[in-house]
Amino acid sequence: MIQVAEALKIIGENSVQMSISKIKVSKSLGYVLAEAVYAPINMPPFRQSAMDGYAFTHSELAQFEVVSTSQAGDFLEDKIQKNQAVRIFTGAFVPDDTDTVVMQEHTRVTDNLLQIEKMPLPGANVRAKGEQIKKGELVLDANTVITPAAIGFLACLGITKIKVYEKPKVAILVTGNELVSAGKKLPKGKIYESNSVMLEAALKTIGIKKTTVFKVKDSLKKTKMVIESCLSNFDVVLISGGISVGDYDYVKEALLKNGVTELFYKINQKPGKPLFFGRKENKLVFALPGNPASSLTCFYVYAIPALKKLMGFEAVHLPETKRKINTAFKNTSGKTLFLKALYDDEKVTVLESQSSAMLNTFSIANGLIVVPENVTALEANDEVTVLPFN
Amino acid sequence: MIQVAEALKIIGENSVQMSISKIKVSKSLGYVLAEAVYAPINMPPFRQSAMDGYAFTHSELAQFEVVSTSQAGDFLEDKIQKNQAVRIFTGAFVPDDTDTVVMQEHTRVTDNLLQIEKMPLPGANVRAKGEQIKKGELVLDANTVITPAAIGFLACLGITKIKVYEKPKVAILVTGNELVSAGKKLPKGKIYESNSVMLEAALKTIGIKKTTVFKVKDSLKKTKMVIESCLSNFDVVLISGGISVGDYDYVKEALLKNGVTELFYKINQKPGKPLFFGRKENKLVFALPGNPASSLTCFYVYAIPALKKLMGFEAVHLPETKRKINTAFKNTSGKTLFLKALYDDEKVTVLESQSSAMLNTFSIANGLIVVPENVTALEANDEVTVLPFN
Repeated sequence: MIQVAEALKIIGENSVQMSISKIKVSKSLGYVLAEAVYAPINMPPFRQSAMDGYAFTHSELAQFEVVSTSQAGDFLEDKIQKNQAVRIFTGAFVPDDTDTVVMQEHTRVTDNLLQIEKMPLPGANVRAKGEQIKKGELVLDANTVITPAAIGFLACLGITKIKVYEKPKVAILVTGNELVSAGKKLPKGKIYESNSVMLEAALKTIGIKKTTVFKVKDSLKKTKMVIESCLSNFDVVLISGGISVGDYDYVKEALLKNGVTELFYKINQKPGKPLFFGRKENKLVFALPGNPASSLTCFYVYAIPALKKLMGFEAVHLPETKRKINTAFKNTSGKTLFLKALYDDEKVTVLESQSSAMLNTFSIANGLIVVPENVTALEANDEVTVLPFN
Repeated sequence: MIQVAEALKIIGENSVQMSISKIKVSKSLGYVLAEAVYAPINMPPFRQSAMDGYAFTHSELAQFEVVSTSQAGDFLEDKIQKNQAVRIFTGAFVPDDTDTVVMQEHTRVTDNLLQIEKMPLPGANVRAKGEQIKKGELVLDANTVITPAAIGFLACLGITKIKVYEKPKVAILVTGNELVSAGKKLPKGKIYESNSVMLEAALKTIGIKKTTVFKVKDSLKKTKMVIESCLSNFDVVLISGGISVGDYDYVKEALLKNGVTELFYKINQKPGKPLFFGRKENKLVFALPGNPASSLTCFYVYAIPALKKLMGFEAVHLPETKRKINTAFKNTSGKTLFLKALYDDEKVTVLESQSSAMLNTFSIANGLIVVPENVTALEANDEVTVLPFN
């Protein structure tokens, strides 16, 4: 049995970034850039008007003949004389012979005769070519997480494809003779299987949609076969149940027989003690406890960091934050506790019923309080570490 | 021109919840429950062992004959005598005649003879029927946002479908003669269109995937036609560009001609001043500024609250948080400023280049600092309001 920090360290050391592939910018939300991107063009690609108004050459003159129009999208090649001006709109090409744009609110126009009533400074309201970014400059560095703004930035430079770390394909393997799929009649002694849909949803929250669920009865032979197939076809295998010491828990044996190296088994924590973590080549295996709340706690605390590291994220752990706890709390277990909690901008509230079998409180929690194994008592208003869910 | 707070109030008052529909629990992540859900069964549905061990009837006896096995999923109907015990596993049915489970670590077994070395209390390690939730009790209240844990909780009760608020169908209408799709050659005077992919990605971050993009040149007739079609087929129309006062900006006229009521136009803010918000029946229209950074700022601050209210969320605004600002900042504009920023657990840093045309900094920002219109100067370490993205 190891401590939480050691478990996280082992997971970090054994999670290897996925392969790199080129994908469409429009589909890249939440992916991590695998290489730096440089600007293929200047942005703006030409001198651009920042206003609706008139373009002219700054001089001692204040009166101009309006000779043409530059609408956004136009490319006006006409030669513009010093005593001439061009009607121009926001975003439009500023003709080469002009250097300044006066906003229309500062002008009066009669019969194509422009009178500037408030003269702007030379160069006013003209966005320089390459003002936002110059051709060849860095757009986004490697390891940037792609946000909506990053997608907009790449697209405005005409970039359609980028290299990113792939997302892992994840197998969810659910074991247990007692499990019945929701929607079916529930025979005596059985319960509804819920961990597969729960884990699929949890994977979606970190952007992993390619999941396949396998269900297997408590049989060594079948468990071994399914695990073999999962290891061949998926990058990560999440197993739910079958990992405690009961006579009918075949998962660990099936994993070892498939050549999975055990990196740790059992963590000094509550809930989620019987967590198994193993590796075969670059494939990772988490055998999660069967109890739903334990399973989800282990997923958030241990599987998310591994999956995010695979996807190229630099910040892989749940983001930690500090809050004042609302109530005194005793920890006589000698274990690290992960408590379902509701936090707001000021404090964090420990929710009732922390049982590892119960999802009641987990359903409304927005984070976990971490009580380290060596902290035996907390007073109300003590500062504690909170792991927010997203 | 109105203030930010008034704009948000008008949006709140005019955003009406979507229709309700029944969807699969497995597909319900991020939806909002439209009605309370009650438990159709007890959970656990029977008395369940919390341990691997032996079930027996608590008495003065410490020695028992092991007569059968209750594995998880079994339903053992055998009559168990007072001097008999049953081998039992975690999650398994506790036979009706027994009341206590001793964990296997506290026993010694020789030839079917069980010796209890450390006697548990009566009733120990037996989870009562309905301990997690009783048939008929509240599972999740109306307006609960469906999390992975909520999905697990519903599924473990055998619930396969729930009633939720639908997600709005959103049309994105991009206007401008200057726009060229990424991937094509860029003629002089033109720029690449990027707002559509950016807004599609921003919609995905709040769970809206059903979007359709329309592109239209600067023509009143065409703009009017496309808006008419959008209003018939979508719940929300996001329009990018064409809303300033330029001669070629036809969007506002096209909206009014289509019977859209103007609820406000122009907000006393920077960036994003020329934002238009209108309504036709329950359909909402946001005409966003064409500049990418202004457009995205307006989306985060104004469109997200509207869209979340439509989807049934109670907390609709970007969650506000307070941080110490890293640097002094002047606001001589008399406007509310939304500054691209990077915040961590302690402070918030104002990013460079806040220009409304630039997405450089937006790409790496994780929130916006709000500087109210009546705040003219901030000192370093003053506390400011931050709107985190996500």
